[in-house]
Amino acid sequence: MPVPFVRHSEVDVLIIGAGPAGLMCANALANAKVNVRIVDKRAFKLTTGEGDGLSPRTVEVLQSYGLAERVLKEACQVHLAAFYNPSSTGGIELTNRTSNVTAPSARYPFEVALHQAAIQDIFIDSMTPLGVEVQRSTIPTSMELSKDDNELADPTSYPVRVVLQRLDKSEGEPQEEIVHAKFVVGCDGAHSWVRKQVDITMDGEQSDSIWGVVDMVTPDTDFPDVRNKALVHSNHGSVLLVSREQDRIRVYVQLEDKDVTDPVTGRVDKEKMGPEQILETAQKSLVPYKLIRKSEFLWWTIYSVGQRVASNFSINNRVFITGDACHTHSPKAGQGMNASINDSHNLAWKIALVVRGWADMSLLSTYESERRKFALDLIAFDKMWSTLFCGKPLTEQNNDGVSPDHFFKTFQTDFTSGIGIHYQPSVAVNDRNQELASGLVPGKRVPPYKFMRAADAWPFELQDLLPSDFLFKLLVFTGDFSDPLQQARVESMVTDIQKPESFLNRYATHENSRFDIITISKGRKETFNLFQLPTLLRSHWSKVFIDDTDPTGSFGGEGYSYYGVGPEGAVVAVRPDGYVGAIAPLDRVGDLDAYFASFMKIPADA
Amino acid sequence: MPVPFVRHSEVDVLIIGAGPAGLMCANALANAKVNVRIVDKRAFKLTTGEGDGLSPRTVEVLQSYGLAERVLKEACQVHLAAFYNPSSTGGIELTNRTSNVTAPSARYPFEVALHQAAIQDIFIDSMTPLGVEVQRSTIPTSMELSKDDNELADPTSYPVRVVLQRLDKSEGEPQEEIVHAKFVVGCDGAHSWVRKQVDITMDGEQSDSIWGVVDMVTPDTDFPDVRNKALVHSNHGSVLLVSREQDRIRVYVQLEDKDVTDPVTGRVDKEKMGPEQILETAQKSLVPYKLIRKSEFLWWTIYSVGQRVASNFSINNRVFITGDACHTHSPKAGQGMNASINDSHNLAWKIALVVRGWADMSLLSTYESERRKFALDLIAFDKMWSTLFCGKPLTEQNNDGVSPDHFFKTFQTDFTSGIGIHYQPSVAVNDRNQELASGLVPGKRVPPYKFMRAADAWPFELQDLLPSDFLFKLLVFTGDFSDPLQQARVESMVTDIQKPESFLNRYATHENSRFDIITISKGRKETFNLFQLPTLLRSHWSKVFIDDTDPTGSFGGEGYSYYGVGPEGAVVAVRPDGYVGAIAPLDRVGDLDAYFASFMKIPADA
Repeated sequence: MPVPFVRHSEVDVLIIGAGPAGLMCANALANAKVNVRIVDKRAFKLTTGEGDGLSPRTVEVLQSYGLAERVLKEACQVHLAAFYNPSSTGGIELTNRTSNVTAPSARYPFEVALHQAAIQDIFIDSMTPLGVEVQRSTIPTSMELSKDDNELADPTSYPVRVVLQRLDKSEGEPQEEIVHAKFVVGCDGAHSWVRKQVDITMDGEQSDSIWGVVDMVTPDTDFPDVRNKALVHSNHGSVLLVSREQDRIRVYVQLEDKDVTDPVTGRVDKEKMGPEQILETAQKSLVPYKLIRKSEFLWWTIYSVGQRVASNFSINNRVFITGDACHTHSPKAGQGMNASINDSHNLAWKIALVVRGWADMSLLSTYESERRKFALDLIAFDKMWSTLFCGKPLTEQNNDGVSPDHFFKTFQTDFTSGIGIHYQPSVAVNDRNQELASGLVPGKRVPPYKFMRAADAWPFELQDLLPSDFLFKLLVFTGDFSDPLQQARVESMVTDIQKPESFLNRYATHENSRFDIITISKGRKETFNLFQLPTLLRSHWSKVFIDDTDPTGSFGGEGYSYYGVGPEGAVVAVRPDGYVGAIAPLDRVGDLDAYFASFMKIPADA
Repeated sequence: MPVPFVRHSEVDVLIIGAGPAGLMCANALANAKVNVRIVDKRAFKLTTGEGDGLSPRTVEVLQSYGLAERVLKEACQVHLAAFYNPSSTGGIELTNRTSNVTAPSARYPFEVALHQAAIQDIFIDSMTPLGVEVQRSTIPTSMELSKDDNELADPTSYPVRVVLQRLDKSEGEPQEEIVHAKFVVGCDGAHSWVRKQVDITMDGEQSDSIWGVVDMVTPDTDFPDVRNKALVHSNHGSVLLVSREQDRIRVYVQLEDKDVTDPVTGRVDKEKMGPEQILETAQKSLVPYKLIRKSEFLWWTIYSVGQRVASNFSINNRVFITGDACHTHSPKAGQGMNASINDSHNLAWKIALVVRGWADMSLLSTYESERRKFALDLIAFDKMWSTLFCGKPLTEQNNDGVSPDHFFKTFQTDFTSGIGIHYQPSVAVNDRNQELASGLVPGKRVPPYKFMRAADAWPFELQDLLPSDFLFKLLVFTGDFSDPLQQARVESMVTDIQKPESFLNRYATHENSRFDIITISKGRKETFNLFQLPTLLRSHWSKVFIDDTDPTGSFGGEGYSYYGVGPEGAVVAVRPDGYVGAIAPLDRVGDLDAYFASFMKIPADA
């Protein structure tokens, strides 16, 4: 037989797997104009989905890519969480109904329910016009990483060799392709092929509780929280009910091991129980309320989950894993898709900056340091939460049971909003000068606040001035420029930051800047004149904002105080992913030189 | 020569003219599934536009058709108005900068600038999927209205005969078509052909001030209000500057008659002055500020305007005129496109209900009574405003001049927001029982307020529950249902309204209702149970709302007080166009029977 023709190709980034993690990564890199390819073994895109919850922080992140609007149009908002516990008369009763999201700074103060296939479509529709499409029916069959240290250290080299095989070609057609990639990202799920190739182990254990899940149209019911999130502890087991888009609900039901496992293998056997039985089990726990199904089941499954974290998230900063490939946990805290999307959000800008030649390879190490710590925190939370949720309720007969109060308080710690994520100091996070902006914490995301555009008093959300466009944003809080002393300080800062040795010039190419300067001044819309500011601080009239109330007096005007910035002002460097990178005082703006020098590269043409 | 083949056709509504008035009307009727055609003499759709301002009320109206989102995405928001007057040192100075919209209840508290062609595209893109397209290169050549009273009185007859001629057919092809229409709407502008056919006269006079207009990219300038609305009174004449979309501005400049009129005819002669001279004139008035153009002029014109209103807006309720065909006035109050859009909004639902057989022909008379009064008010305002704006400023040399204070106060009366429109009592507006809901005024639009959906505490804007879907909305303010006395009143109302003789049954067909019942209860999201309400008040779980704060406590919770509804509740009938129609107390809901009986028809199958 003749040796089939094998095609060789080069690509900056090869992504394996087109689930939420892979598509998020591909779309982000497509936005950054990085040469990227994404392959998936499935022949068709998903039409129904398993994951379905987006946290408030994830919606903020999607908004930074211009995708939140469509998500919100298609999704269901879950605003309230209701807690049910055994009542004294048998059955259950409502003990508490409260906000489902307790993070006060959340821009979107609710959980978003939308099935995974719809979210994947949003990514696909965003990246298609950018020229990136999923190559389907394609599997990797081997992967080799160069062992040459020089090659590994050179960001322009292609040290990863992946053989791809097409499953949809007829005999005689070329089925194999050898891809030489600068970087490979494994987004190929809990059973990640990429992870296995690079011998990364998963640490953790299998949980011992088993759950059934059914999706259906909102049933005929007298259960008052059928359109909220309902967390039910009953004497018959636990139930989690969550409202969903298109008038649907999802019900998670705790199952007895004996009812669903194969006595020989000990594994879950889906033959032993169907959706009818799962719903019946839920109905027992919901007495005295009735839940009468009025449609076919739309989807169902039974699962038990391992709680594991990968020992490494990267090999040599050349092969990365994100999403389920590096952490698995229970779906009940609604974190699966969120962790995946935020892994890729964290990784994409770092790869993009290295590929562009803006950043040193060392920046890539912060992906593992930032996201693995998050994954460990997530697993710890998930274990605690699952234990409490699966535990028998505290009753007179069961003194060791879970107290409703303890469960409720744990819920309110609100790990699940994603808002609290705090990356530790590294080359990408410098925690100096925190006292100058106590509400803008290095390593945390910039909280939302509305400022008025100085030229026209049009209100803008600051987060919308920080799009995921792969630039660093410099928020220049000038203070009150009409105060002569402060004016002098601002003008002196502008002189300093424009010196040739300042980062602003050091890392500028002739074509474009890596920095977007956004000026936030103190002032009143009735009198402010933006043309008084130094030219650097108003590269365009649309770049100047004031901390004032909106024209109707309904909101705004306390941004300096909200961000903890004093009258002396500050300069805040925000990373391309919307997290605070570093802070400097106006009269020592050189503090930012050290921050950027720790990972930025001087352009060749400088 | 052979007689060319002439096609005959029937249509419910024929619209002549595809400007904002015609397209608004066509899109509204397309939404209502009315058999409608729209023709226009122009071969191509507009690509640049003259009118460019949408008032806050117009944006609310567009939102009711699902169109505001795109408008807001493409448009510029004008939040502030700045007033400049002669300074003591020569030149001008800022004397006041204030909110551009002073209507406190405006949902969109700003003016929207978007050129007419973009707005027309939005209508066209909305109605195309509904099967309605503009038939271009088509003019009407004759129109005849039947003189047979029986035919005119029968809503199913086709008493208007219009001959249409295609301008784009080659010789030999059929060029003429005879259309038999139930209704004809003339949306064919200030020189309306339709108006002339039915001998409707225009009453009023030509104004004597002449203005030049230029559009350009935001210039290099030190003028602080270049991105606001700036109203400038200088000793060299008046200037109006307005920011626009896509980093553009528009400048209106008062011109001297002698510079721009033909001395023989007395008419404006565009040969005598070009955009350069118009801008130079503006520059003189703006001293000491500089306005340095940095792009080509994008559009320009010179105009003088008549202030006229048609003597009638309809003939026999069969031929109607809307928009510029029935009123012309100066563009400086920014009302042209708004009046047109709101004329058609007012007319469309009335025609739709008559065509459907739901309403009596007499309902159509309220189009003229409601919109002609508005047009007269508009002309009165426009005359006063133009006089003040064109007047010389008050100075030591000119004691008769316009005082800045008077001008500013007139601005603040805010006729221009469109929010204040108040249709007088008629068959469509019943002003009884006003005391039960002092904030919901019969004949005025329902002001926006946010309520929480009872099932899931999802905040909804009440205006979004009143879409232009051609149904009457019944807002049932139940009061506090947990109060046994109030519960009894509500249950008794439900019994009454379900009686066979009640309007709710009288005007219901077997297929569908003409009414959408929206329940607004008092209650707390932490405890409210919507399943306690009578079934009629919760036809679906999504139809029940509570007057409570949102889950973050940021807004809401004072809707009863805002609408002036007491603890005893009320039932408010809202017209399909979002205006309050009638109000009834819970224990006399029969008051609504009289309202609906005044124009509604009992269905044939009832």
